[in-house]
Parts: sequence; C-alpha cells; structure tokens
Amino acid sequence: MRVFVSLVPPRCLRLEELYLNWYNFANEALRYEVENPRSFGKAHRIVVVGMGGSAIAGDMIAIIANSTGSIPVFVWKDFYTPKTLIDDSTAVLAISYSGNTRETILSLEQALRRTDMVGVVASNGKLLEIAKEKRLPYIQVRRGLVPRAALPILLYASLALLEACDVKLVEKSDVNEGIEVLRDVETAKSDSIYIASYLQRARLPLIVATTRYNALATRVKNELNENAKMPAKVEIAPELFHNDIVGWEAAVVSDRALIIESDIEYERALLSFYAEYLQERGFEVTELKLRGRSLLARYLYGSLVAGLASVRIAKMRGVDPMTTHSISKYKNLVTALEDRVRSSIEY
Amino acid sequence: MRVFVSLVPPRCLRLEELYLNWYNFANEALRYEVENPRSFGKAHRIVVVGMGGSAIAGDMIAIIANSTGSIPVFVWKDFYTPKTLIDDSTAVLAISYSGNTRETILSLEQALRRTDMVGVVASNGKLLEIAKEKRLPYIQVRRGLVPRAALPILLYASLALLEACDVKLVEKSDVNEGIEVLRDVETAKSDSIYIASYLQRARLPLIVATTRYNALATRVKNELNENAKMPAKVEIAPELFHNDIVGWEAAVVSDRALIIESDIEYERALLSFYAEYLQERGFEVTELKLRGRSLLARYLYGSLVAGLASVRIAKMRGVDPMTTHSISKYKNLVTALEDRVRSSIEY
Repeated sequence: MRVFVSLVPPRCLRLEELYLNWYNFANEALRYEVENPRSFGKAHRIVVVGMGGSAIAGDMIAIIANSTGSIPVFVWKDFYTPKTLIDDSTAVLAISYSGNTRETILSLEQALRRTDMVGVVASNGKLLEIAKEKRLPYIQVRRGLVPRAALPILLYASLALLEACDVKLVEKSDVNEGIEVLRDVETAKSDSIYIASYLQRARLPLIVATTRYNALATRVKNELNENAKMPAKVEIAPELFHNDIVGWEAAVVSDRALIIESDIEYERALLSFYAEYLQERGFEVTELKLRGRSLLARYLYGSLVAGLASVRIAKMRGVDPMTTHSISKYKNLVTALEDRVRSSIEY
Repeated sequence: MRVFVSLVPPRCLRLEELYLNWYNFANEALRYEVENPRSFGKAHRIVVVGMGGSAIAGDMIAIIANSTGSIPVFVWKDFYTPKTLIDDSTAVLAISYSGNTRETILSLEQALRRTDMVGVVASNGKLLEIAKEKRLPYIQVRRGLVPRAALPILLYASLALLEACDVKLVEKSDVNEGIEVLRDVETAKSDSIYIASYLQRARLPLIVATTRYNALATRVKNELNENAKMPAKVEIAPELFHNDIVGWEAAVVSDRALIIESDIEYERALLSFYAEYLQERGFEVTELKLRGRSLLARYLYGSLVAGLASVRIAKMRGVDPMTTHSISKYKNLVTALEDRVRSSIEY
C-alpha cells in the first residue's frame, strides 16, 4: 500500500485549485516509483490504450515521441485493439486514472494475450489489480482527483514508466521545463481570463491547430466539453485546407475560433491565412499563446490555461465544472453491455 | 503514355454523373497496370501520405487493414512525416489525385531518403514524374476528375499497387462485393434523396460513427464541406462518450445529427443510446444505412450515398458542387511559401 504525502486534500478541492496545483502534482509524479520494471527495449512501437482524460496523455506522448523520441507511439481508444496493431514486438501502456475504465481494461486484457511488454498507469481499480497480479510494470498515482485534473501526473508518470522500461522519449531538460511553466500560475491565470471571456460568448467554438498541436486542440475541446459543458469542433491544419475550409464558403453559422499558435514559422503563416479567411466569413478569431521551448512545456502550459479558462466559463454559465452526468450514464450502459461487448471482441 | 478507353468524357460530366459512374470506375481501376512492381514484403508497417480527397482512400485502407489485413497502415497528412514513423522497414504509399499536392510531394521526397519501399498513385503531375524517374512502383489513374469523384479509383488502385508489391490487405471476394454495391445506383439515389433532404436543413450537422467507421464519417463531412459548402463536426464513439457528450449538457445550439450504422451489435446499442441522448438535447437524429457485408463494400456504398446527397444539397442551396475556391487560394499560398516550408522540414 502506497502512502502519499498529501500536498493538498484530494477531492474536496475545487477544480480551479487542482489546476493551480499542477506544479506540485508534476513534481510529485517525478517521485513516483515504477513497480516491476522490465525492458521494453526490443519494442518497435508503443501503443497507448485509454479513453478521454486519461488517453489524452497518450495523445501528447505520441506527438512528443514523433518530435524527440526514437520509436513511434500510437493511441487506440476503444473496447478492442486491431489485431494488426499489437504483436509481440509492441509495448502497450494502459492509462486509466480511475483504473476502472471498461474500454481500457478490455484492451489491456487483449494486449496481454499478444505481448509481454505491457505497463499500467492508474490510481486504483481493476487495472492496478491486474498489474499486481501479473507483475506488470506499473505506477500508482495519487487518488481522489478527476482524470482531467491529473494530466501532468498521468503524463509524467507515463514518461517515467516508459523510461524505467528502457524507452526514453524526452530529455530531462524538457521534463524540467514542463514543470517550470506550471510554476508561474499568475501568467496562466491572466491568459485564462482572456480566453474565458472570449470563448464564453461562443456557441460551438472552432479550435484550430497544426498537426504538432493536434492533441492540445483536442485537450482544449475536451476541457470545454467537460468543465464548461460547451460543445466544440476541432480542425487540424494543413488537412483542414483540403476540405473543411470549403464548408464555411456558404455556411449559415459563424462563431468564435481559437487558434493554437505554432512554433514553426511557415505554420504560423498558414494559421494567419486561415484566421483572415475565417474573419471574412464572419468569425471572430483569437490565438492561444503558449510558453516554453519544448513541445512538452508548451502542451502543459496550454493545457493549464485551457483548464483554468474552462472552469471560469463554467462559473459564468452557472454550471458545475466537477460533475459529468452524461459520462456517468454512459458508464452505467457499458456495465450493462459488458457481456455483449466481451463476446464480440476477438482476443 | 497511357491511353484510357473513355467510358465517359471526363471533366465535362457533372459531379452527380461521376458518382453514378463509380461502378465503371471501380471496374476500370481493376484493369490498371502496376508499373515497376517490387516487393514490400519485408515492411512491418505502411504509411500513406496524402491530403484531403486523396488521403481519405488511405484512411479507409488503414481501417480495412486493421480488420482483414496483417500489417498496420497509418496515414500522415502534412508537409512532413515524423522521423519515428518512416524507417527502412516502412513501406510508403503516396496518393495524390492531381499528382501535384505540395504536402504529398514533400512527404514523398522525405520518404525516399529513409526507405526504398515507396509507391505512387496519381493521375498526372510531379508525383508521376518522380515515380518514373526513380522507377518506383506506380499506378497512373484516369485523368480529368476531381479527387473526391475518383474515390473508388484511388482506393482500388492503392489496394492493387500494394498487392502487386506483396502486401495483400483484402480478399478478392471483398473487392468484388465493393464493386457490386456500386452497381445498384437506384438504391443509392433513393437513400441519398432522404439524407439530402434531412441534412439540407442542418446548419452544422454532427456526423457520428464508431471507430471502424471513422473514415466514413470523415468522408461524409468532407463531401458536405466540398460539394454542399456546409461545415460539419465529426465525433467518434466510444471516445465521444468520455468528453464530447458532456458538451451538449448546457449547449445553446442543437442541430441535426447523422449516425453511421455499425455492423457490430454492441456498437449499435452505444449509438442508440447516443441518439436518444441527442434527441433529449433537442437534436434531430437519423441514421446512414450501409449495404454489403465487408467493410470495403460498406465504405464504398456509404461514400456513394454521401456524394450523391451532398451534390443534391448543393443544388438546394444554390452552390456549385464542382468548385472549391478556398482550396485554390490555399494552394496559391502554399506555392508562395514553398521555400520556407522546405527549409523548415528535416529530411
């Protein structure tokens, strides 16, 4: 049984305070121990299985691996994984904050039949039980949070688990920079106030990013969904220039767009072109500015601003950012469906 | 120089007639010759590079490979490919209908520095020039279409090229079934009239599918974008149940949703649950029914209905389904930016 030095009393804190505590959470995550480490060194790809606020850490790791790692990382979000994706040369990382996400448990069970390189990141639940029983590499993270508030914990624990299993995706200097950008909460707060007052007047905002910031655009959308109870639409450049852009030519709606800045100069030019186009179509457009040099730091900073902004929008709209009733209803359905799911899946 | 037996006079045909001619196009594609075949048999993954209406064939092939193939297929849509993704054990397929898509040309040039297993599918342009000069496996397809009207050609030519290079992803029976569902144009027309009258009244429709139909949802969206000049939002189950669903809890908009049916029973139950939820939130909901047993056939039939429906909506809205002015503006920008792009990309 692990005991955490409680920097903050979990659960009873409001979501905003949890986000403002990310600097401490990230530092805490660096101190977690990896249980049962073993080498994933012979793996030629990594597949992350998970859903929602847990899988987004995998999405970010996939982007970072493409930039600074040496092995491709893919994320699969479903009750199964395709048989082509996981073989005995694949390392699988299952991330579920609660440890009880049914999709992730079933995907983990499948993975165990195909490869012996399987790791787990969870705070609790069935996933941890399986990890202990099968002596899989795992990290048990702090309990009592909502998954979205645990982002830096899930991200850093996942990177640490992979590193302990001989898969190094980021340099120590990037890890440290990622923590540093979380320290300056005043700047993040100030940026989030601007973004919140901007997006609060949107009906279904358009979140735009380039491929390298794909997972941050998804994170921003998910935070608006879960905290502010606001739908959003994500589009990724340059692909959006080959289809979505035409959709606005005769659109009967226009709204507010949030464009996530890129650190690559030609991508900035593409995004500027798109911002002007959207404005011509009646959109208001603003930019989410990021901080830091490394992708990891920029992702963490952008996620912090999005989290704070979405909580602020929730307050403005009079909704509770902590509760997600419709996800709970879905989870009841899945529990009822579990036997049918299990009998449909090829192991 | 290849000479095509012209079943239809290209370009001068209206888009609707092109879609109605898919049965002939698919048959024609089966007769294309693969030039310079070589074995990709040692590849442990396939990466398709392309954009928009060309890349969607790759998206579909990736889904089909997951279901019936033995090797994973990934699609990357940008001016570059990540260095982790393409190594000397990767086969790369570049698809560009025009053969002049800048993103695809740059990605192909990068790929050629990393692997000698590279193939090309194009009707013309720089991509074909490179293929001929480097003696790469290639298929030259019929000219004079718009890329979206060439879907069965691009899909069948890509599968044929891979098969000639020792990568077999689908059985002959599935290929034949895919052609058969395109023959019954009266059923597809009738289905498309219903879908068009339904979506014509949408402002920004929500297109929903399960992971196995992900690429069809994207195709439906892209057809609405390009032909009907209508924006759309795509959401994929089960991931949508972990974030997007909450966004509608306090949404100030509701619209029309099109749910793409699944062939898996428990996925139908998930989609029914979501349909009811959306209706409670003020949405109208209907389903896109598919035909055929194989994924390939179901994808082709759904694409045909979506194509016909989107042209019909274009007529109802008084827009020209053939022109895509905003994509043309983007292409001018990219030509002007090309040197900056090239100097930013790591080869």
